[in-house]
Amino acid sequence: MKGILSEIGRLNHIAIAVPNIQKASSIWENALGANISSTQSLPEHGVKIVFIESPNTKVELLEPLNKQSPISKFLERNPNGGMHHMCYEVSNLENAIEKLIAAGVKILGDGIPKIGAHGNPVIFLNPGDFSGTLIELEEIKSN
Amino acid sequence: MKGILSEIGRLNHIAIAVPNIQKASSIWENALGANISSTQSLPEHGVKIVFIESPNTKVELLEPLNKQSPISKFLERNPNGGMHHMCYEVSNLENAIEKLIAAGVKILGDGIPKIGAHGNPVIFLNPGDFSGTLIELEEIKSN
Repeated sequence: MKGILSEIGRLNHIAIAVPNIQKASSIWENALGANISSTQSLPEHGVKIVFIESPNTKVELLEPLNKQSPISKFLERNPNGGMHHMCYEVSNLENAIEKLIAAGVKILGDGIPKIGAHGNPVIFLNPGDFSGTLIELEEIKSN
Repeated sequence: MKGILSEIGRLNHIAIAVPNIQKASSIWENALGANISSTQSLPEHGVKIVFIESPNTKVELLEPLNKQSPISKFLERNPNGGMHHMCYEVSNLENAIEKLIAAGVKILGDGIPKIGAHGNPVIFLNPGDFSGTLIELEEIKSN
């Protein structure tokens, strides 16, 4: 069955929460030959981050900067880390939000897009609506 | 830091385990405008499967066919479903296995590639070595 409308674009990234970004990225590099970016600290998002590029998309490893980090609770439940969310690009976030709400999907927080780690507007969708999967939508204008 | 060797290729798919594939895929279609494939039954792998295509990769929704399914235990722990594994393509699985073992990574099962759901040789890596993330490597010859 093919949908007529396609809201979702590229898979921008898969985010993996890790307790120690240095240790986590070294195994990707040494065992899988992955290209690892330098570590960025994003205090406004409460995380340190590295990118692991593959030809078609990327993995982001996230380590919390403090207890208030949005991924601290996840790591309390999953002390070794794990897949935290996946992010799709959309060309128009307001249109996507309208359709999501019409379909009965809950947007996390106050439902208003925030500026995400890449400087673009993002929202997060209620994992309960997507089989336990946390989905981020990121508006990429220049697609 | 850039690795000299790059073993991992394209991200082939992200697999999401779901208790009900019909219900799970309808929300992706209706709320996200995703293109959903028809459902395939793969009794030899113990799952029903649909593909959700996006321009650069795909999501696979997996529903167990029975209690012996490799994803049944995961769904006991995560009754609503959740991200189960991610799969990278590699051009030479034997080479990848050698490097993984040399780096101290454990291959799940007997360590010998099996034929995966797409008809290609696959292995699964110990999630304990990758921050709780289950990684599948699939050999794609024609890359």
